[in-house]
Amino acid sequence: MTQTTRAPLENADGAHIREWLRRFQHVRRASEKLCAPLETEDYMVQSMADVSPPKWHLAHVSWFFEAFILAPWLKDYQTPDPAYDFLFNSYYETHGKPFPRHLRGTISRPTVAQVYQFRAHIDREMERLLSAPPPEHLDEIIDRLEIGLHHEQQHQELLVMDIKHILSCNPLHPIYRNDIRQQLLAHADQAALPDAPRWHRYAAGVRQIGVDYPTEPAFDHDGEGFVFDSETPRHRQYVAEFELADRPVTNAEFLKFIEDGGYTRTELWLSDGWHLMHQTGWQAPEYWEKVDGRWHTMSLGGLVPVDLNAPVCHVSFYEADAYARWAGARLPTEAEWETAAVDQPLAGHFVEDELLQPQAPSRRQGQDKNQAPQQLYGDVWEWTGSAFLPYPGFTPLEGSLGEYNGKFMSGQMVLRGGCCATPGNHIRASYRNFFPPQARWAFSGIRLARDV
Amino acid sequence: MTQTTRAPLENADGAHIREWLRRFQHVRRASEKLCAPLETEDYMVQSMADVSPPKWHLAHVSWFFEAFILAPWLKDYQTPDPAYDFLFNSYYETHGKPFPRHLRGTISRPTVAQVYQFRAHIDREMERLLSAPPPEHLDEIIDRLEIGLHHEQQHQELLVMDIKHILSCNPLHPIYRNDIRQQLLAHADQAALPDAPRWHRYAAGVRQIGVDYPTEPAFDHDGEGFVFDSETPRHRQYVAEFELADRPVTNAEFLKFIEDGGYTRTELWLSDGWHLMHQTGWQAPEYWEKVDGRWHTMSLGGLVPVDLNAPVCHVSFYEADAYARWAGARLPTEAEWETAAVDQPLAGHFVEDELLQPQAPSRRQGQDKNQAPQQLYGDVWEWTGSAFLPYPGFTPLEGSLGEYNGKFMSGQMVLRGGCCATPGNHIRASYRNFFPPQARWAFSGIRLARDV
Amino acid sequence: MTQTTRAPLENADGAHIREWLRRFQHVRRASEKLCAPLETEDYMVQSMADVSPPKWHLAHVSWFFEAFILAPWLKDYQTPDPAYDFLFNSYYETHGKPFPRHLRGTISRPTVAQVYQFRAHIDREMERLLSAPPPEHLDEIIDRLEIGLHHEQQHQELLVMDIKHILSCNPLHPIYRNDIRQQLLAHADQAALPDAPRWHRYAAGVRQIGVDYPTEPAFDHDGEGFVFDSETPRHRQYVAEFELADRPVTNAEFLKFIEDGGYTRTELWLSDGWHLMHQTGWQAPEYWEKVDGRWHTMSLGGLVPVDLNAPVCHVSFYEADAYARWAGARLPTEAEWETAAVDQPLAGHFVEDELLQPQAPSRRQGQDKNQAPQQLYGDVWEWTGSAFLPYPGFTPLEGSLGEYNGKFMSGQMVLRGGCCATPGNHIRASYRNFFPPQARWAFSGIRLARDV
Amino acid sequence: MTQTTRAPLENADGAHIREWLRRFQHVRRASEKLCAPLETEDYMVQSMADVSPPKWHLAHVSWFFEAFILAPWLKDYQTPDPAYDFLFNSYYETHGKPFPRHLRGTISRPTVAQVYQFRAHIDREMERLLSAPPPEHLDEIIDRLEIGLHHEQQHQELLVMDIKHILSCNPLHPIYRNDIRQQLLAHADQAALPDAPRWHRYAAGVRQIGVDYPTEPAFDHDGEGFVFDSETPRHRQYVAEFELADRPVTNAEFLKFIEDGGYTRTELWLSDGWHLMHQTGWQAPEYWEKVDGRWHTMSLGGLVPVDLNAPVCHVSFYEADAYARWAGARLPTEAEWETAAVDQPLAGHFVEDELLQPQAPSRRQGQDKNQAPQQLYGDVWEWTGSAFLPYPGFTPLEGSLGEYNGKFMSGQMVLRGGCCATPGNHIRASYRNFFPPQARWAFSGIRLARDV
Ligand SMILES: [Fe+3]
Ligand SMILES: [Fe+3]
Ligand SMILES: [Fe+3]
Ligand SMILES: [Fe+3]
Repeated sequence: MTQTTRAPLENADGAHIREWLRRFQHVRRASEKLCAPLETEDYMVQSMADVSPPKWHLAHVSWFFEAFILAPWLKDYQTPDPAYDFLFNSYYETHGKPFPRHLRGTISRPTVAQVYQFRAHIDREMERLLSAPPPEHLDEIIDRLEIGLHHEQQHQELLVMDIKHILSCNPLHPIYRNDIRQQLLAHADQAALPDAPRWHRYAAGVRQIGVDYPTEPAFDHDGEGFVFDSETPRHRQYVAEFELADRPVTNAEFLKFIEDGGYTRTELWLSDGWHLMHQTGWQAPEYWEKVDGRWHTMSLGGLVPVDLNAPVCHVSFYEADAYARWAGARLPTEAEWETAAVDQPLAGHFVEDELLQPQAPSRRQGQDKNQAPQQLYGDVWEWTGSAFLPYPGFTPLEGSLGEYNGKFMSGQMVLRGGCCATPGNHIRASYRNFFPPQARWAFSGIRLARDV
Repeated sequence: MTQTTRAPLENADGAHIREWLRRFQHVRRASEKLCAPLETEDYMVQSMADVSPPKWHLAHVSWFFEAFILAPWLKDYQTPDPAYDFLFNSYYETHGKPFPRHLRGTISRPTVAQVYQFRAHIDREMERLLSAPPPEHLDEIIDRLEIGLHHEQQHQELLVMDIKHILSCNPLHPIYRNDIRQQLLAHADQAALPDAPRWHRYAAGVRQIGVDYPTEPAFDHDGEGFVFDSETPRHRQYVAEFELADRPVTNAEFLKFIEDGGYTRTELWLSDGWHLMHQTGWQAPEYWEKVDGRWHTMSLGGLVPVDLNAPVCHVSFYEADAYARWAGARLPTEAEWETAAVDQPLAGHFVEDELLQPQAPSRRQGQDKNQAPQQLYGDVWEWTGSAFLPYPGFTPLEGSLGEYNGKFMSGQMVLRGGCCATPGNHIRASYRNFFPPQARWAFSGIRLARDV
Repeated sequence: MTQTTRAPLENADGAHIREWLRRFQHVRRASEKLCAPLETEDYMVQSMADVSPPKWHLAHVSWFFEAFILAPWLKDYQTPDPAYDFLFNSYYETHGKPFPRHLRGTISRPTVAQVYQFRAHIDREMERLLSAPPPEHLDEIIDRLEIGLHHEQQHQELLVMDIKHILSCNPLHPIYRNDIRQQLLAHADQAALPDAPRWHRYAAGVRQIGVDYPTEPAFDHDGEGFVFDSETPRHRQYVAEFELADRPVTNAEFLKFIEDGGYTRTELWLSDGWHLMHQTGWQAPEYWEKVDGRWHTMSLGGLVPVDLNAPVCHVSFYEADAYARWAGARLPTEAEWETAAVDQPLAGHFVEDELLQPQAPSRRQGQDKNQAPQQLYGDVWEWTGSAFLPYPGFTPLEGSLGEYNGKFMSGQMVLRGGCCATPGNHIRASYRNFFPPQARWAFSGIRLARDV
Repeated sequence: MTQTTRAPLENADGAHIREWLRRFQHVRRASEKLCAPLETEDYMVQSMADVSPPKWHLAHVSWFFEAFILAPWLKDYQTPDPAYDFLFNSYYETHGKPFPRHLRGTISRPTVAQVYQFRAHIDREMERLLSAPPPEHLDEIIDRLEIGLHHEQQHQELLVMDIKHILSCNPLHPIYRNDIRQQLLAHADQAALPDAPRWHRYAAGVRQIGVDYPTEPAFDHDGEGFVFDSETPRHRQYVAEFELADRPVTNAEFLKFIEDGGYTRTELWLSDGWHLMHQTGWQAPEYWEKVDGRWHTMSLGGLVPVDLNAPVCHVSFYEADAYARWAGARLPTEAEWETAAVDQPLAGHFVEDELLQPQAPSRRQGQDKNQAPQQLYGDVWEWTGSAFLPYPGFTPLEGSLGEYNGKFMSGQMVLRGGCCATPGNHIRASYRNFFPPQARWAFSGIRLARDV
């Protein structure tokens, strides 16, 4: 994402910049809307090392604009507190030593109110900058603004995941939003649909995978055209003939795996997963809990019965992989997934649906036999069998932003397609999410593939 | 503390009971006053496993009255939430499985406001009970009320310790109360007084140590007469001739130990302490921090210069023991300490002083050569060389309250005398506090003794 | 143990020194005899952090003579390898940085044969020194020789404990000596004797506890007169009236505790013990194993049925304490134990019996109602309720030997009386052994006491 | 590796089987030869969790033949001890619960001598089986024998790695073979050759990677034709144009990285590696040690000066990756590596050289400008940037042997080319070794690649 790869912005008129400002405000409001149902106390909790307190998320995404845009380019910019640069730096070691991650929950000051003041301060100052941007840095300001907005959207999804985990740790089973509860109770399927997944076949061949950095800034459409460093460059991969299931694995199907002793059969498991499972005592997906003989799950509407026809969610890579082996299939590679997804419309159940829970497809009406795979986007992030590694020709961004994705290319698996907590304009066929194989608190599910 | 050891309460008239109610209200208000300077966010933090969130303290001491008085003896008592009985049980395993201690900081609900409502609920219901107590249980109600009040006072001191730790973990060095800061800055001594400690000699002999449960309930004096199970029974101990320093070790003296390589000389240290010190990297008492070449310490008024003439505080037993060895002395046993303290007036710098920091004695006026040891009460808990073990003839209380102290009689050392965070009517010569030898977040200091 | 407390040795004639040499040789041979049944491989194992490989024990006790006697006082003394001074230093930090304890099992060189050569070397050089000792250091040489011999005897007992643990970790259940197996199988009681323990009462009063360093060197009797630093000085303690059981708790009695849910009843346990027990899964003493519905125990004769009338062994302090509470009694203090033991003859089942397993007393013949408590010495070390702390007036030895016991006076409990693995001349009424409360691999058992 | 993929063996005449027997004996002797310089004590050590005691290796590879060949197909086969099936099972959970890996060093029995007897027993019984193999199982016997021999060769390499680690933990710096020491001291380069690596370019295109199971058993050539499950099947991959360095990174080059602050520059490191490096304190490759200002390294000839022109060895994936970034290059993918290697002769410095240390190439004579990359085989395993994942179409073996490689396809990186401890006939272009990214005790080095 160097300037040289883009057409110059000299022609960026005020209308364009106002459009960016509008998007900025829109994204900023979305973060706050997600936190609106929280009590002050909820903002403070770090329920496990992977989780960050919501307060920290809100401050950190603001710090990003301060550290990478306002501090370098807004004349006379003043921070509310120089310590924020230490407290809210996540992992940009080239920018300065970050505050230890596992202690984020111990920082009660700044308070939630002060963090909202920090947000308002950043908003005002960004407005001030964009009202009269220094022309010689406009390109870079817009570049970083764009990253900053996508960064904040990433954290919106993390906010949902983390809030769910925070509330789930509480034996009171607190409810985040009551309307979610009403909807989930009204629609949970108590009987599994009988249909097996159907398979779509894809021919062998050299495929174009990934994308290049756009050469034009993405001024006038909603996020379209933006890509993270890790999705670049567009490159060739040979993909052998394969088949992909038309939908994610459902809760009903995963229950069969459980009942068939899936968690007790060593031959189904990767060695690391087998040992981890014994240490942790996993017997079902995260958040599942048997109440009076029936499986329930913690949702953002509290504890509700498991919807048998919804995609299974909150499974680790190890469970996804074991399930696939049990089913006589395997997980798709990320190239296979992208091959199937690249032609599909970017539609699905996203955060804007406000259910924050994977949903059953509307399959009762009967399936069109020729239709494409369903639910590739939204509902659940789909584990792939691919490790998160650099694409051939990958070059990280320069400076601190070069730490964005590249430094995590070790020990993680790729997930694709977004989920019920992803902003709808924050996903695309080439988007590479990643988590360590043991992670279960993301909205992660399973889609099967198989060799022909 | 069985009923049989006390005179019957038939003669307890309404005035007596109103007096108990007044004390109840007084203690309850004191807890809330300590928390008044806190932000909602501060109430949530568990900055290490030993620390509990202030919110938890406030709820737990209320639960104690619910579990041990209201639930058994108030007709039609209703809890605001049955889950509180699980969430706010600290360690009474015979009462039910307690919520895991290290996760207390992850529980955002009930909120702080709800915890204050719980407190108000308990207050009202206790008032209701005491307005018409069931005569046949009056004895036991008063017994447990008395324990409950002393229990809450114990937690008041823990609240101060924990709040200090919580704020100290924050790189912003938040200030709990600004008036404390003003006083500390005004009075910190920058020069050490020249006087060495003087020694008081005590003759050898069989001493009476500890106390018996009082045979009369302690109706009309402020807490006097109450004792914890661990202080009983009164018993004989032979105490050889010894000498006790007239005051605690000062910061100036401890600095000399540091500058003499105290933390690097293996021959001064117990083996466990030596290894722990290397793991933790201790180089000075907890909360000390060098700023521009001068030692500062975190206080409840923020970071302030170390007062050279104040008692050293926040040292572990291992450091206290190493210091004593360096000084050619030793720590007193608890029997020695009690021998010296039993005749001294119960005066000192307690929580009511509102400084929450150990103070230098007013020694500038010159010492009376015949005076007794100073500062035995208040300022700093004084580590003794005695392990926390049952006294000869010790019998724990019956039922869940039998878990009060006896189950912790393993792996802990006794400290005596109270500190600047102790309620003034919550200390006595026989009071046995205890902490594991590595603890440093209590207001713990050093007084020397030596053989003759 | 400074020279000044002893009469000068000018009158030590050659006969005396030859007597010391004889004792030296005797003790040295005893260590080797204990290792005779081992395979070379057994010498190498560190089966847990507390255990040392037998090879290390054999070398370490030799190093003690090198470091503290030969190096300082034998002219032209040459070590076989200077690295031994690092490898075989246990914890004498003032002597030099010791090799990390938990890695002792990773050191394959020097080999077992080389360690035996080192032993022979030390033996020869000690002989050379004692054949012409420098008169001006004779006192100190004899002092340290005496400590060195008792030190080696301590390690002989550790050798037995550690060898037992090493072999017990092996699923093959290896047998150390087959004659032990034969005896154990021949004599194990399958039926419990019906007799309850009888209680001996001791009057209240000030007792003399501990001993002083002898003022005469202990030339002509077998170890008698020697004391460790921690047993000194002799001092007064007030001991209230108490009763002591006439014998240790038996396996049959401990089985009743197990069957009565002893390991599941929280009210019987110290808090630390309760949590440790849940972590470790203890359900019975160390080495117990149910085979075909019957309790067996690993012994140095392999796996054998539990002898119901033998003293229970390999229990932690926590289990001893919980058992006592269950039985309506308590553990004795070390002063009580010493009060009872000081008048008893130093007889019992020691290492010289070569059974290395606690034995049932010969009680079938009927008990003499007036007889003293039995089995105070030998069979099992008896947990006391006393923490291992310095006696009033305790002064450690000077120099590195000052690290002998004093630095461990934290976090340990005292055990008294020796066991089936103790050399018979290495025990006395004042002997204070100590282990952390969780230790179970020592031959540790239970004797009850109670208040009157 | 099912029978159906191979031509039937009916035509396998006795000569063929005698050839297999000869190879069996040859491989078996090689293991023992590697252990010949060891002391009995060395056989016992597990110097870290990843290391297995040499005794265990020798027994485990023998158990493999017992469990998978003799027990199923040799009539009347008797094991020397049924417990071996538990003790020497490494991780075949479908075969039975394996003995805990981290406790392998605690098992002193069977002794080393007994393990050699077990080996002799297996040898005799294999001879008995192969002298009259049941014709109906001959195919499968030969299949498993072949795997068993390659399995034992893998363990030969592990033996060298583990022996090196075991001896290196000993402060005495024991020497495995003195002739190695002589050679290393004679040939270590003290001055670095000036030449930079040269780059070989490879055209873009779809490549055939991996191999299929052979359809003919590999009777008459030395190991040729055998492949592990993870190398199959042969499949297409698109490989973009790339360049590969003509030789591994040398010690001299890695020293420049160190001296340039390579271990202190966060921007060079993957996040996991950066944090691990700080925890472990890595400042140089494993086994490096500065003596009198000069870097030495532990070798199987003891501590010797680092040979500046030899390939750097004993670096983790993280260090290899950081080095490559520092050098403006990257690690090759395994497909790139295989593309370059597939045409090269299988020559190099292998275990048969008996130096067990990577060697400088003979480059002093000047390089042929047209020559191919050097040292692809032997000297050091070369870290690739590829995670160890199944190839498209991968199918594990059936039964317990299906656990061979597939279950480890998580969390590991691929290394290629064999090393100075690899048997020369145990390597091929398609061979995929794997280690977790933090491993340093393997003979692992670095070869650079770069985009064009
Ligand atoms: Fe971020
Ligand atoms: Fe409490
Ligand atoms: Fe020792
Ligand atoms: Fe193996």
